[in-house]
Amino acid sequence: MDLASPPALLYLQLAAHYLGAIESGALSPGDRMPSVRSLTKLHQVSLSTALQACRHLEEKGWLEARARSGYYVCRPRRLALQPSSEPALPACIDAAQFLGIHERVSDFLARCEQHSLRLNLAQAFGSPDSYPAAALKNAATRALRLHPDVLVSPTPWHGEQGFRTVLARRALESGMRLIADDIVVTHGCTEAMNLALRAVTQPGDTVAVESPCYFGLLQILQSHGLRSIEVPTSPQSGMSVEALELALQTQPIKAVVVIPNFQNPLGSVMPDAKKAAMVALCKQYEVALIEDDTYAALSDDELSLRALKSWDEDGGVIHCASLHKTLAPGMRLGWISGGRWHARVKMLKYAQSRPNDTLLQLTASEFMASPAYDRHLNRLRRLLRARRSAVAESIATHFPAGTRLAMPQGGMLLWIQLPPLRDPRAVFDTALREGVRVAPGWIFSNSDRYDNYLRINCGIPFTPEFDAAIRRLAEIVRSQLA
Amino acid sequence: MDLASPPALLYLQLAAHYLGAIESGALSPGDRMPSVRSLTKLHQVSLSTALQACRHLEEKGWLEARARSGYYVCRPRRLALQPSSEPALPACIDAAQFLGIHERVSDFLARCEQHSLRLNLAQAFGSPDSYPAAALKNAATRALRLHPDVLVSPTPWHGEQGFRTVLARRALESGMRLIADDIVVTHGCTEAMNLALRAVTQPGDTVAVESPCYFGLLQILQSHGLRSIEVPTSPQSGMSVEALELALQTQPIKAVVVIPNFQNPLGSVMPDAKKAAMVALCKQYEVALIEDDTYAALSDDELSLRALKSWDEDGGVIHCASLHKTLAPGMRLGWISGGRWHARVKMLKYAQSRPNDTLLQLTASEFMASPAYDRHLNRLRRLLRARRSAVAESIATHFPAGTRLAMPQGGMLLWIQLPPLRDPRAVFDTALREGVRVAPGWIFSNSDRYDNYLRINCGIPFTPEFDAAIRRLAEIVRSQLA
Repeated sequence: MDLASPPALLYLQLAAHYLGAIESGALSPGDRMPSVRSLTKLHQVSLSTALQACRHLEEKGWLEARARSGYYVCRPRRLALQPSSEPALPACIDAAQFLGIHERVSDFLARCEQHSLRLNLAQAFGSPDSYPAAALKNAATRALRLHPDVLVSPTPWHGEQGFRTVLARRALESGMRLIADDIVVTHGCTEAMNLALRAVTQPGDTVAVESPCYFGLLQILQSHGLRSIEVPTSPQSGMSVEALELALQTQPIKAVVVIPNFQNPLGSVMPDAKKAAMVALCKQYEVALIEDDTYAALSDDELSLRALKSWDEDGGVIHCASLHKTLAPGMRLGWISGGRWHARVKMLKYAQSRPNDTLLQLTASEFMASPAYDRHLNRLRRLLRARRSAVAESIATHFPAGTRLAMPQGGMLLWIQLPPLRDPRAVFDTALREGVRVAPGWIFSNSDRYDNYLRINCGIPFTPEFDAAIRRLAEIVRSQLA
Repeated sequence: MDLASPPALLYLQLAAHYLGAIESGALSPGDRMPSVRSLTKLHQVSLSTALQACRHLEEKGWLEARARSGYYVCRPRRLALQPSSEPALPACIDAAQFLGIHERVSDFLARCEQHSLRLNLAQAFGSPDSYPAAALKNAATRALRLHPDVLVSPTPWHGEQGFRTVLARRALESGMRLIADDIVVTHGCTEAMNLALRAVTQPGDTVAVESPCYFGLLQILQSHGLRSIEVPTSPQSGMSVEALELALQTQPIKAVVVIPNFQNPLGSVMPDAKKAAMVALCKQYEVALIEDDTYAALSDDELSLRALKSWDEDGGVIHCASLHKTLAPGMRLGWISGGRWHARVKMLKYAQSRPNDTLLQLTASEFMASPAYDRHLNRLRRLLRARRSAVAESIATHFPAGTRLAMPQGGMLLWIQLPPLRDPRAVFDTALREGVRVAPGWIFSNSDRYDNYLRINCGIPFTPEFDAAIRRLAEIVRSQLA
């Protein structure tokens, strides 16, 4: 157990440890789990903690108890599908000239606007019912009453002090030690990422990103004239540290950008050891490490996921995040903690859009300082988990053999690997014409290697219409089987 | 009369025409104004229109009526100070390598934060009492009630439709013909200017700007690696078209940025003929013309000031503006109409910060669609005019001989040219140490040519404390007289 990690219940830490072993294949389906008694010795925990950990994994469907024999690793029921394939590690990393993604995303958006929409599965946030609409509305109304001049008064530099204080306090849960002054409030994580990249790079520089990579980041990179190198990234455990090191050895990389927790689109979570290794590696090569940690709070477990910045000793990590997925898609609130580039980040924010308006910061900070925020997060996690499971079940039932699926332990996204198809892009187009919008794999890379992937948003209720859309997608896929 | 101009009362158009003549010196103090009867013939207007125009200029202090003799041009009473000097037109334009302004502004901001503040005269917007706080608060509360899910729902691409419709309708008053789809809502005019420059330039490109130039623009230019050329700009009539042409002939200029109405810091307004000439010139040289038209509604007259974009025939003009000065300093609402670069502007906005949140757009559009908005603007104009006059009077009374002042016909800024001083920068520093913050001239240029200028915000009430600050500033100036 890593005693430096932020406080989490011991049994959950123990469970996470063995889940990592199962996911990495160190423990395979059918393998016997170490006995409860041996767990107490191995990890110096109490019998009840060891038992709780096993029961937790049993509940999650990772272990099954066999009478008088102990716990055995089972394949979770819903994973009738193969997990998504792991990336091959290349012998060397090629610099992908960053051309075309602007047109790809523009083309995607333009096509989307051409067709009337029945069901939008292309987004990456929950439906309005997933969020505390009434409480936020009341908080905003109260903020207007308590601060009647808020709309006509100057906005505080770098963000409203109370809001930044709440964010700093919440950052403790991810293992970071920040104060309000370490934080600049931004217009969502998107602006934060723009500022981070502008702070550490010049046009023409090269940036290492995950593969597949959130298309918004690819767009940002291109819009600032930056080149990208796509580094192989595991659907289970995130960016390969080995491949990143290879890239750092051979390419003039100025920054590395990762989503350590519930990567978009993969849903992968980097294990703590890997996070620590990545921070150390970037320090060694003196490149900026930028993390987008927007999804960390959406873990199925109550376990807090650590931010990369929690291992940062010398300001080499820039932490970016937002409330867009976890609290309020209609409030564009994000933030950035710029490490050793913080002064430059502050000036760039001032030059790019001046400080954020105050009303929504007051609204968010009131809500986030109250116990209602944790209640909301717990509800949201349960909701997303149930919705994700239901969609995954439907995919497993209807999609043809050869379909593979990464099964994330949090967040709202599913990344579907389709079997070999004659024209993978036709799946997206056909569905779009029928009013069903999904996020096509090719916008998540500058290459063609994700043409036969789809990203599905599970943040909305799994209605019969949603189920019908999955069935229809499956039909379209079948019709394109190679 | 220009029949293509947007509808404005005829007598105001006539008055503006002669005000232009007075300001340009075509009619000098002491000159006899054409008789009312001759005006009717010259301009084919009715007797009452001609009379109204003369009375209007009399009220403003530009004309005086002499019994049985008619109207004569007088120097407005308060202008005991010489008007600011006109810039010398250079024989050639040097490209100023754009270094240093980031440090200048950073240094200015850092120094400001070091001293406790009694009176802030360095900003460029009105005090909260200048704006309709209660009405906006009520509009926001109503928007929350009518749209209870607004904080948890996705934000509409490019901006809320109703808000963009109101903006398009209001643009008619500045002579533009826009529809909602021509407009992208931004985080203030600052973000709009960032997008405009990013849409039309590459790092390393050269941009022509006014001299003196709003420091925020200089910062934006530097942050994107752009070089600036400062073009001589008249305190009365804005950027010199002749000097701009010279620059276009000799330098590889990609874009021209101007504030056509109530330039910051000068307060100058470009006459219509000059605006038209500038649009034609930029078209001829095929460079983008970017206007920041944030202050147009703040004219002392009810006369609408035309935007450069109203002469734009082929999409060569990018129009940027905001509500930050005119309606609500606490609501970061701006917009951009990108002309032929509009598709690129839309994509850059999406990549830079995603669409603005909806609540404040709903709030603004409800208010702006109502007659209350015009009532507010009329009140604000009167307020600013009175405050500006009072500050100017105080400066004229207390500052030493040799002080010169541009007297704008709108807005909230005064640009004071100090007499030759031993150490002009000491004025700013001494005042700052005593808790009075002004905007020092040197942040408005990459050169030293505005070191003995100060910009004073007249948007706040002219209290005895304000008056005392002006007197104290005058003392500091005297103590530095060369």
